[in-house]
This record gives sequence, C-alpha cells and structure tokens, in this order.
Amino acid sequence: MRDLKSLQELFIEAIEGRNFGENPANLYEPFHYILSLGGKRLRPVLTLLACEAFGAKAEKALEPAIGIELFHNFSLIHDDIMDDAPLRRGRQTVHERWDSNIGILSGDAMLVKAYQSIGQVEDNILREVNDVFSKAALEICEGQQWDMDFETRMDVTEDEYIRMIQYKTSVLLGAALQIGARVGGADDVGAVQAYNFGLNLGTAFQIKDDLLDAFGDPLKFGKQVGGDIRSNKKTILLIHALQHAKGEERDELQMWLDEETRIDQKVEAVKKLFNEIGSVRYAEQRMEAYYRMALNALEECEAHGANISEMKAFAEYLYTRDH
Amino acid sequence: MRDLKSLQELFIEAIEGRNFGENPANLYEPFHYILSLGGKRLRPVLTLLACEAFGAKAEKALEPAIGIELFHNFSLIHDDIMDDAPLRRGRQTVHERWDSNIGILSGDAMLVKAYQSIGQVEDNILREVNDVFSKAALEICEGQQWDMDFETRMDVTEDEYIRMIQYKTSVLLGAALQIGARVGGADDVGAVQAYNFGLNLGTAFQIKDDLLDAFGDPLKFGKQVGGDIRSNKKTILLIHALQHAKGEERDELQMWLDEETRIDQKVEAVKKLFNEIGSVRYAEQRMEAYYRMALNALEECEAHGANISEMKAFAEYLYTRDH
Repeated sequence: MRDLKSLQELFIEAIEGRNFGENPANLYEPFHYILSLGGKRLRPVLTLLACEAFGAKAEKALEPAIGIELFHNFSLIHDDIMDDAPLRRGRQTVHERWDSNIGILSGDAMLVKAYQSIGQVEDNILREVNDVFSKAALEICEGQQWDMDFETRMDVTEDEYIRMIQYKTSVLLGAALQIGARVGGADDVGAVQAYNFGLNLGTAFQIKDDLLDAFGDPLKFGKQVGGDIRSNKKTILLIHALQHAKGEERDELQMWLDEETRIDQKVEAVKKLFNEIGSVRYAEQRMEAYYRMALNALEECEAHGANISEMKAFAEYLYTRDH
Repeated sequence: MRDLKSLQELFIEAIEGRNFGENPANLYEPFHYILSLGGKRLRPVLTLLACEAFGAKAEKALEPAIGIELFHNFSLIHDDIMDDAPLRRGRQTVHERWDSNIGILSGDAMLVKAYQSIGQVEDNILREVNDVFSKAALEICEGQQWDMDFETRMDVTEDEYIRMIQYKTSVLLGAALQIGARVGGADDVGAVQAYNFGLNLGTAFQIKDDLLDAFGDPLKFGKQVGGDIRSNKKTILLIHALQHAKGEERDELQMWLDEETRIDQKVEAVKKLFNEIGSVRYAEQRMEAYYRMALNALEECEAHGANISEMKAFAEYLYTRDH
C-alpha cells in the first residue's frame, strides 16, 4: 500500500486535471477557482488510505474521494458567505470575487456534483455509501447551525459543544474513511470502525485546535494566537472555565469577558485563568481520550483485515502537529 | 388508477404529517414553514401519477415524490434569496422571516433530505433514479445561472432562452415523471418517454406563461399583467420581436424599451408591436409544437404499457388554464 504522500499526489493530479463544466461560466468558474486554492486534501486522501488499508487499489475510490472533496468545498463556499469571510487561504472567497448569488448557486451545483461522484461505486455498496454520505452531510448542516446559534448563547454545555464540533468537522472524516473502507472491501464492522477512527481523531484534532489557538507558538501557528479569547468564542476551554470557576476566579473571568479595550492583557489573563481553573489540563485529557478511542477503533479495523500502518501514521501526524 | 385530485390529497396528507426534524430549530423550522405555504404540489403528484400509469400503487412512489417536493422547495428558498424576494404565496420568504444565513443552510439541508427521500426505491433502479435526479438538479442550477446572466444581456437567442426555461423548470417535471414511471415498473423507453412528456409539457407551459403575462385577463391572472414588458424581461415574445423587427418597427420597439416613465403606454404599445411583428403568433406556434411533442411522448408511454388517461387529463388541465 502507498503512503499518505503518494496518495495525496494521486488525488491532486486527479482533481486538478478534472473539468467540472464550463457553461454557464459563472456557475463553473468558482469550482475551478476554489479547487485551485490548494490545501492538503486530507479528507479525500483518507478515503484513498482506507481503501488501500482494506486491500484494494486507491484508484477504485478516486471518484468517491473527489465527491468528498467537492462536498468539503461546497461547505467552504456557503460557510464563507454565512461568516462574511473576505479571504480563504489568503485569496478572495468566492462570494467576494463574484457575488453572494454566484456563491450560493455554484455551491448548490457543487453539492449535486458531489453526489454524482460519491455514487461511482459498485452496485452492492451504492445504497450504504449514499446513506453514509447523506447522514454526514445533514449533520454538517446541523453542526453549522449550532455553531451560529452558540454565538449568542452563554449557556452552551460541553456535550453540546462536543456534538457541534463533531458534526461540523469530524463526521466528514468518519464518512470519508467509511466510504473508502467499504470500496476497499471492508466488512460491516471494519467499515464502522473506520468511521469511528475518523470521528474520534477529528474530535481530538478540534480540541487540539482550541488549545493551539490559545497556547500555540505564535511563530508556528498560522492565525493570530488568542483569537478565540479575543472574541469570547465558546471553546472547550471557556466552557469548562465558565462551569468550574468559583468565587474570585469567576468574577475575574467575567470581568475579562466583558473587557472591550485592554485586549492583549485580556488574552494573557484569561490564559492564566484557564490554567488555574484546570481547563487546560481538562482539555488535554479530553483530547487524549478521543485520540485513544481513535487508536482503539484502528485496532478493530486491523482485527477486521486492515493494514493500519498508514492510517496510524496519519493519526500521529495530525496529533503531533504544533500549528 | 386514481385521478389527479385523489393523488394530490394522498400526497398532501403524507407531506403535512411528516416531521423532518426539530433540532436545531433554526434549521428545521424553515422546512415546516415553507411546506406549510401550500401549493398544488404538481411535481410530486406527477411522480405518483406516472407510477400508477405504469401499473403500481402510488404509495410505492411516495418517498421519491417527497424528495421531488423537497428539492423544489430547496430551490424556492435559495432562488428567493438570490432574487431578494420578500414574499412567496403572500407570506414572508424564509430569508425575510429568519435571515439569509438560515435560508442558505436550511436550503442545503433540504437538498440533502431530498436525496435521502429520492433514494427510497428498490435496489435495481436506485442508480438510475439517483442519476436522473442529479442530472435534473444540476441543470436546474445551470438554468438559474443563465436566467441571472440573461438579465444583463441583450443578445439572448431563442435557443438559449428555450434551454434556460427547460433547465429552470421543465427538467424537474421530466425527472418527476421518469422516476415515478420507473418505480411503477416502466421499461427503459417508457421511462424516457415519461421524461419527454414532462419536458415538452413544461416548455409549452412556460411559453404560455410568457403569453399570459402580456395578454392574460387581468381579472384571472394572479400577477400584474404586463410585468414582463415593464421590466424588459427577455421572454420568447421580446426575443422574437428583437430578432424580426425591421425599420420603423425596430426603432419604435427600441424607443419603448428605453422608456422609463410612460409605463402604461409602453405596455400597450409593446403588445401592439408583438402582434404586428408576428411574435404572438410565433410564440403560440412554438407552444403548440411543444404541446404536440408532449402528447406524442405520452402515446409512446401508452405503447409501452402505460394507462395514460390521467396524465393526458393533467396535460389538458395545464394547457387550457387561462391564469
């Protein structure tokens, strides 16, 4: 079986060489534009990795992998409209370069094309693959809605938060892996455990993202460190801190949340509080727990016939990142 | 087999009793809201009609019919955002009642749910049903984009116009019928001819819409008569007139297109020109030609085992409407 890098190259060659359509130009140019912005293509590569892990050539899973990437890019286009984001990967977002209407419509068309590619699998697994994909797609919409709802709520619980990040991000990793595993010949348990591997790894990854946003090395972390604290974003750190701060700590935390001018001091003070309240240690423990669940699921995949070496390497690569 | 009205009742009971989801409320309330605005449910009823025409109980096609109606409502929600429309059926549009973000996202979720319902067919036709649906869905996006592009173009040809109205409207009627026919047991030719029936009937219907907008009885037509002329909309009448007006007629037509104040006179003058240039007669001929093609396709369905009496009644009902 090929390694992550080889499969990444295979996928990039396939998607960059693909003509998704030309007319009307305002519908299809955004496809080629957003796909040209690059990225690691981690989701579709997971589909290819899982396919090879269960013993088939990655080429067999290339079309569904393209479907996964198209779905991901559809969600980026629509999320950027909803977030009013001007830039993606340092370039104009689709609705900035064209307009919102073109962003809405080309996103819609991209979702339909995603279904067309996802369906390029053998008859005996077509229904299951469609079902896995649709379930994840719906959960991703639900996750995005919760994320928007949470902006104006101060009573978000940890369970709600975990479900939101899982729906918004992890279920697509799970679906990408489950579909690849099925195309590769996995049995029922193997396919579901491939999903569980992605779900739990993605959840660990999102918690790590919360930690890096506050405590990452500014020289390595791409975004401004402390951005979540500046905007009072409900991360696992803040949710834990709000739930567990007592007495003076609680008053101090509330004061900094209400602070609107001394923003640099706020970042340092809130980080200190996150440490004192135990929120950092708690988040690290949750992250480790999800990572262990991911590795357990991987062992189940192995017990059901998979060669898990490359999926394990992928997990370690994600887990040890510091940016 | 049951008639249009009975199948309409069957469908309305099924969709109004359906719970599409509850949480998050901002994602699912728009589903129930837009579906509560009513409508004749013609598209899903065509699915049921075709199913019974080919010999199966309509209940067998109820889930894909719900998928067709969900798709239609998804496109209404997103089109209303793109058109900045405040009202639909006299009630607030989804993005007006909530906001654009909720409109985008609940529309996305509705498209995914449409796929889930469309897929509730037997294994042996699942791939074909998905393919027919995705092809129509993509063409509908293309048609909507062309429609937006045409607003700023004065050189739209009749072929481009016909393709635009077919993609925007007729292909969904075709797909609704083809899917229903297949579920009902139609053979390959029968299913394709059911599609052709819908495609051509829908095209005749759209041309009739252009004629009614200009020449309909103000007491019967729901919208303001002459609305298309007021906004210089590129209908088949205007496209034909621009192509065939010569000399003085051409100058006069151009003068009225540039007119911005004497709007009531403009409507009467342009209607007169449409008659003099022969655009009305031409549009009527095109409408009749598409209607004949629809009836020919229906005869092919009959030759392939369908009882076409109710589909024929439906065609006559659409064709003889005067509002």
